[in-house]
Amino acid sequence: MNSICKKIYLELKTPGFGDTVADKDRIIRALKPDYGNVIMSLDKLKSSYKILRDFDWKLTVTMVHLGYAWEIVRIERGDTTDKNYAYAADLGSTTVVMQLVDLNSGSILGEESIFNHQIPFGDEILSRIIYAQDNEAHLKEIQKCTLLNFSELMDKLHDKTGISPAECGALVMGGNTTMIHFLFGIDPWCIFYTPYTPSFNSSGFISGREFELPFDGLVYCFPSVANYLGGDIISGLLTSEMYKSSELALYVDIGTNGEMLLGNDQFMLAAAGAAGPALEGGISKQGMKASAGAVDSVRIVDHEMIITTIQNEKPIGICGSGIVDLLAEMLLEGWIDYAGAFVPGKSERIVMREGEYAVVYAWENESGSHQELVFSQSDIFKFMDTKAAANTMVAFLVETLGIEIDDIQKVYAAGAFGTHLNLESAITIGLYPDLPRERFVNIGNGSLKGACMLLKNAELFSSAESIIEKIVYLSLAEAKDFLMKMHAAKFLPHTNFDLYPSVMEKLKRRRK
Amino acid sequence: MNSICKKIYLELKTPGFGDTVADKDRIIRALKPDYGNVIMSLDKLKSSYKILRDFDWKLTVTMVHLGYAWEIVRIERGDTTDKNYAYAADLGSTTVVMQLVDLNSGSILGEESIFNHQIPFGDEILSRIIYAQDNEAHLKEIQKCTLLNFSELMDKLHDKTGISPAECGALVMGGNTTMIHFLFGIDPWCIFYTPYTPSFNSSGFISGREFELPFDGLVYCFPSVANYLGGDIISGLLTSEMYKSSELALYVDIGTNGEMLLGNDQFMLAAAGAAGPALEGGISKQGMKASAGAVDSVRIVDHEMIITTIQNEKPIGICGSGIVDLLAEMLLEGWIDYAGAFVPGKSERIVMREGEYAVVYAWENESGSHQELVFSQSDIFKFMDTKAAANTMVAFLVETLGIEIDDIQKVYAAGAFGTHLNLESAITIGLYPDLPRERFVNIGNGSLKGACMLLKNAELFSSAESIIEKIVYLSLAEAKDFLMKMHAAKFLPHTNFDLYPSVMEKLKRRRK
Repeated sequence: MNSICKKIYLELKTPGFGDTVADKDRIIRALKPDYGNVIMSLDKLKSSYKILRDFDWKLTVTMVHLGYAWEIVRIERGDTTDKNYAYAADLGSTTVVMQLVDLNSGSILGEESIFNHQIPFGDEILSRIIYAQDNEAHLKEIQKCTLLNFSELMDKLHDKTGISPAECGALVMGGNTTMIHFLFGIDPWCIFYTPYTPSFNSSGFISGREFELPFDGLVYCFPSVANYLGGDIISGLLTSEMYKSSELALYVDIGTNGEMLLGNDQFMLAAAGAAGPALEGGISKQGMKASAGAVDSVRIVDHEMIITTIQNEKPIGICGSGIVDLLAEMLLEGWIDYAGAFVPGKSERIVMREGEYAVVYAWENESGSHQELVFSQSDIFKFMDTKAAANTMVAFLVETLGIEIDDIQKVYAAGAFGTHLNLESAITIGLYPDLPRERFVNIGNGSLKGACMLLKNAELFSSAESIIEKIVYLSLAEAKDFLMKMHAAKFLPHTNFDLYPSVMEKLKRRRK
Repeated sequence: MNSICKKIYLELKTPGFGDTVADKDRIIRALKPDYGNVIMSLDKLKSSYKILRDFDWKLTVTMVHLGYAWEIVRIERGDTTDKNYAYAADLGSTTVVMQLVDLNSGSILGEESIFNHQIPFGDEILSRIIYAQDNEAHLKEIQKCTLLNFSELMDKLHDKTGISPAECGALVMGGNTTMIHFLFGIDPWCIFYTPYTPSFNSSGFISGREFELPFDGLVYCFPSVANYLGGDIISGLLTSEMYKSSELALYVDIGTNGEMLLGNDQFMLAAAGAAGPALEGGISKQGMKASAGAVDSVRIVDHEMIITTIQNEKPIGICGSGIVDLLAEMLLEGWIDYAGAFVPGKSERIVMREGEYAVVYAWENESGSHQELVFSQSDIFKFMDTKAAANTMVAFLVETLGIEIDDIQKVYAAGAFGTHLNLESAITIGLYPDLPRERFVNIGNGSLKGACMLLKNAELFSSAESIIEKIVYLSLAEAKDFLMKMHAAKFLPHTNFDLYPSVMEKLKRRRK
């Protein structure tokens, strides 16, 4: 495996008899023929020079590939090359996920996730940014919380696998631009303020000790392209491999923000924008994140609504995939019209609550006598803003490129939302384009997967770099007809029915 | 000038209108076409990102060449390329010297020196090593004193030139292996303990801030070859340029230790050993360092001894160059014989003191009634040990190479001692080989000069590296007949008179 983190066993010539080369240089000279520039930090030298001579010149070095040089991060006695571990992570604004990877076998030995410790500073990312803005102490506080995520995850993985952080040589992560600014303790206000460019795209490698993480390895974050196009997307693109294929493909990651890329091995167009909290369920009173008790799927069969919940718990709210299902099913059944407005009388579930129509999609405690769980008319309209934004982004990319939707040969759906979404429902409401279903590929947590891929294949460094240089980032704010287009998309599935032939078919079938 | 520290003025495109490249990456991308890999530390990014936007994208970066990449160490508003400064230094165990260099003109704007703040831990280097041995607190104490030398010298140069450390991008220094270990806070005991190899030869670049020096630049120390062959000698070799010439040359640096190299552009043989304190005047009760009041030259004309002192102060002792003169003149006048023994009666100055013969070379207060300054028989014998060691090192190198002394086309004399030494006297007593005088080149403080050269010419990096790989270091301890040779050298000039034809001539003339 061409991993970015290598362990090399060395049996060095014992010094003496005219051989005066120093300990450190003895190691570096042994590595030079195969690895060229090899460096070792002052800290590493200080922490290792006293023990080196006890090793009888039989030792294993752990090195991380920086691109322009290899850096030694650990020196151990004897041959420990059979143990070569590293971490891959996705630093999400809500959830942080980490995997422990065995770089000898390539297998994932464990995966843990936690809610981001930044959340107490604001559920929404903007609240956190405002908290830290121009306040060095607050910024440090958020940085500490960001780092705490990783030390906790390392502990969890240690408990689970018995492999300690000390045994890991690298941590590669994808994260959005704001998250990575927080990680580095750099004020992300620039992202929200003209000219909306980040302080940095690429960070290079930082030693874990500099971050006060309990590990000797190096930390690498995928570089960002723009304020809303972060390293998490670049990592996901590596996962999709669409940058290697001549086939035209669309990469879609809809979460708190929506990020889209359209391209192939020749070019890459990108657009991104705030998708709002809609898809994380935040638009409705009972909307919620995809956790236990959230309604995550909805079907209407013979006028009866059938729901499932996450972990089969009693329903307490509805998450993004549930909302998409609910709207799609209601549209197909004629409970709502093309504009998303309720059609009263179509079902007993459609009720008037607090001065507007709403649908009762469940009851807490599964009994009619208890608290209703409703999705209201204004909830629907709010959600349709999000769906319109996503739809318009695709339209904008397609139009900019001067192609037809049908020219898109592959659609890569990434992110937690993309993973749980029912594809048919997403197409029915026009969130995804109406393309043959086999063209859709669910890549799950692309950010995490890309980080894991990079760990195992150092060549992806240059792939990531060339992707970044290739991407043309389109500013939606500068697209004059964007708002008009968005208005047209505020229909289910769209004002232009011709764009959704299979949905029209389905509607005819269901409503007849 | 191809200096290792460059200042580049950039007028960057203002971000916006679809150009989303981040601040840091905007700078790095602008530099990439001409400089390839350009890096910036997390610390530097943190300290500069807030001010960058105030610069209206017209800024000057200061970069240091690391060999495999350029590192940005400073970012300033507007065009400041007319001010590009750096430091060159020689970290001697007794004296630390520093120069402020203008990298635009190449001229030296100031030079300051101080006694090494390590001295309170021991006049001799070995006392300091023993003080620090296996004692982290003591080691840190000596490291702090070592660094204090540089911050004080920076202050002095600031006072003198008005140019502050903040304006300097690099500090390049030569120092012996022990000094550089102390600088890095690394226990140099290894140098004195089997297998006598240092912990490290090359240190790479360290940020001034990591050393808690009051400057943003990077610190580079010339790498060592062995315990007694330090970076100061490598720096001096660069100064001599003998590594570039086909002419066979000898490099001699005799101070506390004696270091010698014999070679040319094809090969390089080295030997080194403790020369003892003799040459710094430490062997005699009245021996002293070359400072005010030290007798630094001695002539005997018409049986009268004529002395000079440093700064023409009243004599208070004798330094190395004075001792060499004293012995040479006494030998030529027949006051001492070839074995260095006094010939009583040859002068009134030869007196019996404390049970042995001695020569009165001066009187304190320049009056016969006051305290005599004497150089005793045992002082002479001690000094001859040192002279024999130096002489034998040359003989050893010449013999190992299978050449004749006369094949040496150039002799580069480096170091403070070499600078002040009277060449004729040094040859007379056999400290230097008897070669045509025009072959001798006094290069002064080669360590300081080489550091200055490297600052101005980055190509010397690879020269230094290739020199190091070329040097074959001969261990004197393993030379079986070394002690026998040394014994033969304990004559003035040598037991083999044929090796010193010009001295024989002189003797005949003077004694007739």
